[in-house]
Amino acid sequence: MKPVKVGILGLGTVGGGTVHILQRNAEEIARRAGRGIVVTHACAKEIKKQVEFSTDDIVLTQQLNDVVTDPEIDVIVELLGGTTLAREMTLLAIENGKHVVTANKALIGTHGNEIFKAAQEKGVMVAFEAAVAGGIPIIKVTREGLAANKINWLAGIINGTSNFILTEMRDKGSEFNDVLKEAQDLGYAEANPEFDIEGIDAAHKLTILASLSFGIPLQYDKVYVEGITKITPKDVQYADELGYRIKHLGIAKRTEKGIEMRVHPTFVPHKRLLANVDGVMNAVLVNGDMVGNTLHYGAGAGALPTGSAIVADLVDVVRALTTDPGNRVPHLAFQPNTLSDIPILSIDEVETAYYLRMNVLDKLGVLAQVTNILSQNNISIEAVLQKEPRDEHAEIVLLTHTVLEKQVNVAIQAIEQLGGIEGSVTRMRLETL
Amino acid sequence: MKPVKVGILGLGTVGGGTVHILQRNAEEIARRAGRGIVVTHACAKEIKKQVEFSTDDIVLTQQLNDVVTDPEIDVIVELLGGTTLAREMTLLAIENGKHVVTANKALIGTHGNEIFKAAQEKGVMVAFEAAVAGGIPIIKVTREGLAANKINWLAGIINGTSNFILTEMRDKGSEFNDVLKEAQDLGYAEANPEFDIEGIDAAHKLTILASLSFGIPLQYDKVYVEGITKITPKDVQYADELGYRIKHLGIAKRTEKGIEMRVHPTFVPHKRLLANVDGVMNAVLVNGDMVGNTLHYGAGAGALPTGSAIVADLVDVVRALTTDPGNRVPHLAFQPNTLSDIPILSIDEVETAYYLRMNVLDKLGVLAQVTNILSQNNISIEAVLQKEPRDEHAEIVLLTHTVLEKQVNVAIQAIEQLGGIEGSVTRMRLETL
Repeated sequence: MKPVKVGILGLGTVGGGTVHILQRNAEEIARRAGRGIVVTHACAKEIKKQVEFSTDDIVLTQQLNDVVTDPEIDVIVELLGGTTLAREMTLLAIENGKHVVTANKALIGTHGNEIFKAAQEKGVMVAFEAAVAGGIPIIKVTREGLAANKINWLAGIINGTSNFILTEMRDKGSEFNDVLKEAQDLGYAEANPEFDIEGIDAAHKLTILASLSFGIPLQYDKVYVEGITKITPKDVQYADELGYRIKHLGIAKRTEKGIEMRVHPTFVPHKRLLANVDGVMNAVLVNGDMVGNTLHYGAGAGALPTGSAIVADLVDVVRALTTDPGNRVPHLAFQPNTLSDIPILSIDEVETAYYLRMNVLDKLGVLAQVTNILSQNNISIEAVLQKEPRDEHAEIVLLTHTVLEKQVNVAIQAIEQLGGIEGSVTRMRLETL
Repeated sequence: MKPVKVGILGLGTVGGGTVHILQRNAEEIARRAGRGIVVTHACAKEIKKQVEFSTDDIVLTQQLNDVVTDPEIDVIVELLGGTTLAREMTLLAIENGKHVVTANKALIGTHGNEIFKAAQEKGVMVAFEAAVAGGIPIIKVTREGLAANKINWLAGIINGTSNFILTEMRDKGSEFNDVLKEAQDLGYAEANPEFDIEGIDAAHKLTILASLSFGIPLQYDKVYVEGITKITPKDVQYADELGYRIKHLGIAKRTEKGIEMRVHPTFVPHKRLLANVDGVMNAVLVNGDMVGNTLHYGAGAGALPTGSAIVADLVDVVRALTTDPGNRVPHLAFQPNTLSDIPILSIDEVETAYYLRMNVLDKLGVLAQVTNILSQNNISIEAVLQKEPRDEHAEIVLLTHTVLEKQVNVAIQAIEQLGGIEGSVTRMRLETL
């Protein structure tokens, strides 16, 4: 059979990785796919050769349209980044009857509904395994591997930069800002790290995973997002003392009231595998009603792991070229006419346990007042640490049982009014998973 | 669209789980697959209701042929166990143009080549996700998710019974036989536990994973197999002291000389996620040349996890019903005409590191003699423990660097000849993964 022809938009880190893999493992890939997959066209302003590849047999252009509308090309790999041009080119490719493979989580997270609708109308596929957790085939696992399950919840370390920072903070007892600088020097964090450390990138990915898990439209704007910038070495140390690790998790959960979607620093029991996923690695824990917990771990970024996901998508697309569109795996795991309008809960309605830390003047009875407020708000206490006072100051650390977020907020407000409490109460959510 | 009709052979634990899932999650499954999947016929000598399901709409029979040859049925789920009748019925189903889904690792491991050939000739699918690691979609991950990779090696905890026993031995310091009895009482081990504790079950599964990873025919008879029955609490404790855990691993590795396939107790560094997979849980670590390490963890057995895998296979089969056979995912991941005849290495040719334990009479100079023998055989030492003598006896524990198995055997033989050594040398392989 003739090789399938691919046009690639962008030859940066991931684009280069993709071409490298298609060239280097060409034989292995053809042995699997039953035919070759070759990049014939590429549009690139600059070519990054982080990994080795040849452009000898690739028609290079600076005009996106040249690639996207070329009648010879079967599949477009979109690696432009951003959402404006990427959206435009993806829609144009679809309009031209091309299948699209993309690594762009922001694009899928924010414009996925529109893109999938267009693709469905045109009978083409849009594949996006590389958009979540790099080399881990978590899209395939959730969408196909766990197809027998009603997925109850998932929790993922889906941003390598923030996981690297949290790991270093714990290993070295360092301050957030110092580790961020180190991560930037090592190339693990961007010069503008906001997307990673504020949880925006994780929220895009969580949006996608939640839709695949629960059969709901993509709703990025309803994700609650909290970054890792306010975590202190003190919190990291208390977590350790209490038998937990702080991880920046994306959590999606089906409850009777609706769907929770939230990204925030989370206390995780240190014995859980997820708590032991360190450095830049990613992992997603999925709980299905039939299978129970499954965990999937691997590299979350980088030229080759992300390229591995793109090429796997290309193989899938090649296999389904002749399948009638109705029998292909649906973009969002569920048939588009069966998507559900279950409401997404606001963070106030989320139920979870909490870690609370507060500074107290060493006055007798402050702990009693605090526990009194908690009890008035029906919040029961799982553990308490009261540290020896220093300079007349002491710290109280509490872990609560599960409670509604808005109730904790009321309690925290009341605690902060107490005469014996200095400053504000530090709060982190805790999940036993 | 009309629902797809399934005939099931066996309504024991897994059969019941499968029917339970298809009934309980019928809506979810149809929302994903685009049509219903219903069990219309079942052959069962006895019906185990470990989980709830209804047989009201199922035609029950005691004749396998009634189900396998019924023209109404699209897919046969084979859950007979064993390899004789299972092979016969699978081939008969194929001959009758039916697709087959099976959980039978012994069947696929030993007769898979014949079965896949017959299926290919007839243009039907044989799906076997449930045959390896229960609810973990490891077949899908290896065969599709990592399709861009040349897989270098994999290492898996793929037998829950033996992992449960090793976990208990470590947690409680117990003897193998005591824990085996406990596992039998809990229903985690069979009355005849040989398949699990001697590694035969794991070897069947490893055979399958190796073929999917390297594109080689199934070669169960070439797997080196060693069980866990000889592990003592002493070894478990030394492993701990040295920073390792003993895990019963199935390992498949591509080397320049050929393919290694081996099942044996293995020292694994305690920081590795795989070392922390405890109890009856399974996990498979796969190393691809592009993606690096990925790990997949979950329940390895049980009515619902295994049923989850069978139903996922049914969804896949339903989607590919109208696909032309040449574009389906090949049974062994690679197109059948591209399978490779790379040789499988004998255990003598395997290179790995070793843990060695020996009893010495407390004679000065025995350690020197031992290290001398190792050095003569080009075996370098990574770590040594010499325990305080008790009753004039002492123990020497050594970890070696990587070396050829046959060289270690020569050294062990020489050590056992030494006057100061009592009994035989205990040896376990060590992998840093």
